[in-house]
Amino acid sequence: MSKISYLPIEWLCNRVKILDQTRLPQEEVYLESSSYQDVASAIKELKIRGAPAIGVAAAYAIALGALEIKTNSTKDFREKLKKITKTIAATRPTARNLFQAIERMNKVAEAGKEVERIKKALVKEAVRIHRAEAEATEKLSRLGAGLIQDGFTILTHCNTGPLATTGYGTALGVIIRASEQGKKVKVFADETRPLLQGARLTVWELQKANIPVTLITDSMAGYFLNRGEIDCVIVGADRIAANGDTANKIGTYSVAVLAKENKVPFYVAAPTTTIDPSLKTGSEIPIEQRKAEEVTHIRGVCIAPDCDVANPAFDVTPHKYITAIITERGIIRKPYGVGIKGIT
Amino acid sequence: MSKISYLPIEWLCNRVKILDQTRLPQEEVYLESSSYQDVASAIKELKIRGAPAIGVAAAYAIALGALEIKTNSTKDFREKLKKITKTIAATRPTARNLFQAIERMNKVAEAGKEVERIKKALVKEAVRIHRAEAEATEKLSRLGAGLIQDGFTILTHCNTGPLATTGYGTALGVIIRASEQGKKVKVFADETRPLLQGARLTVWELQKANIPVTLITDSMAGYFLNRGEIDCVIVGADRIAANGDTANKIGTYSVAVLAKENKVPFYVAAPTTTIDPSLKTGSEIPIEQRKAEEVTHIRGVCIAPDCDVANPAFDVTPHKYITAIITERGIIRKPYGVGIKGIT
Repeated sequence: MSKISYLPIEWLCNRVKILDQTRLPQEEVYLESSSYQDVASAIKELKIRGAPAIGVAAAYAIALGALEIKTNSTKDFREKLKKITKTIAATRPTARNLFQAIERMNKVAEAGKEVERIKKALVKEAVRIHRAEAEATEKLSRLGAGLIQDGFTILTHCNTGPLATTGYGTALGVIIRASEQGKKVKVFADETRPLLQGARLTVWELQKANIPVTLITDSMAGYFLNRGEIDCVIVGADRIAANGDTANKIGTYSVAVLAKENKVPFYVAAPTTTIDPSLKTGSEIPIEQRKAEEVTHIRGVCIAPDCDVANPAFDVTPHKYITAIITERGIIRKPYGVGIKGIT
Repeated sequence: MSKISYLPIEWLCNRVKILDQTRLPQEEVYLESSSYQDVASAIKELKIRGAPAIGVAAAYAIALGALEIKTNSTKDFREKLKKITKTIAATRPTARNLFQAIERMNKVAEAGKEVERIKKALVKEAVRIHRAEAEATEKLSRLGAGLIQDGFTILTHCNTGPLATTGYGTALGVIIRASEQGKKVKVFADETRPLLQGARLTVWELQKANIPVTLITDSMAGYFLNRGEIDCVIVGADRIAANGDTANKIGTYSVAVLAKENKVPFYVAAPTTTIDPSLKTGSEIPIEQRKAEEVTHIRGVCIAPDCDVANPAFDVTPHKYITAIITERGIIRKPYGVGIKGIT
């Protein structure tokens, strides 16, 4: 990972170290904790975010929780662990990776017999999940870079770099990899209201990777797509249904429609851990509704009168708007049902 | 104007009083000045904004400038006035009403013979422009309200109420009028980045008119259109070309594409002073590019690293996305070329 000099999350034996993304880009502040509740709060408050990174943080949180349990009874241990995983599962509803990690950790807890051994196995599994997520984005970014031509201007929405994934990144990983291959690429980054992950994190990550970036408000994406200034759009994903419908940060659906209207390819980049083959279509994906203050206040400053607010954190892009889905196991094209079945 | 209790601009004999819209909704601060430069600055800095209100402010600015000129020579007066109108014309390039008002004021200056008489005629003309803009929105809002059914949920972008128009409002005027007719309407208001006219001004105006409003970020409009929660979209306009192509606040084009994709009617409401029949298509409309700080800073708070920024203040919605254009002289439908020719 030649261009990446920072880690969103690290495992330090019996603690985790998390780069607090809510304070970026102004401050690089790290949290260190051995408490699973702290990690759960960090996920909930978006100190760590991005579907793959959420999965990794959830696995480490369960490992920390397991280490804290004081009992020799396996039955007792499992009951206590169930409460802990419940807390982790309740942090954020949309990202598939969170539940994928929980399922993997639960399997390990069920398989073991002795408490101390289960604890060790859980830590091992969390580290394995972390490594697997990082490796997946390494692979998918390499595959995706093949779609990027020298001189491309790419539009992206939200943040999908190393910060969001613990590895190379998904959509941003593809862009960073293409740049490392010597392709001269430029990026338009949607600021991504309400929480400005594009303005705060994507611009910061692209600058660290020395890739030219122009920041725009979400409302400007259509303007540049319509002027023919964008060669392709790449975004990440929080959950992908069996038919290819993709939940991602609110605003993604709009960008997808605008891309199609202007005949610009629209790519989704995600590890297979983001795919949820149990859901037939995107309409079954739960959409997180977040608090009003995220819309009425920006970095603590009030921008509106006291009023009703809607704040869906994600939307679903129907598969018909998606040109291809880039995963570590290959680039899937229509019909997505077949391609997704083949790799999951 | 039963529901409207505030004025964006007032003429006080030899001064103007402007409600500083950059400080709303937190503070209601008024500027009073007899200097045309102050009014030019107020237009440039968006203390007064909205195409019709800009036209009125420009007319008053020229009147103030004329009153300041100290000479008895008509030739000298006209030369000095030319410099003043040049300053006013340079404030903002997109809104047609600004240039329409300047053309009307220039005609009056050319027609008169004696300096003192020209000055009086210019003041009279500015007041007439003000009255005409207010009356136009009264009429068009009444006409447009006929398109709104009881129980409608309406999406709007940017601010188009009394603040933007000196009268009832254009898009918001239609909504306010429909509500006054007893129709139960609800509004989704796009916050309208970068300058948040939706969050700051539209929510404020709808609350003053007792109309239920839900604030959303610009990126959420597609989500609600796709869910079938919006019955129609209404927006204002800054300039309309002869073929119906419409320049309006950045983000309008995106909403129009999303409305069409989801089979939701998309209406433009504007007085005929916004129509520029000299431009064949929207591609000829000059688009104002504003400074980077409007994107990187929100109400003084920095939200991004130091970076390249694009900040087009408007975009053009091709006429094919527009269901109808509501003017004070009638509701125009396709083909717009014919309808626009008929009323201008």
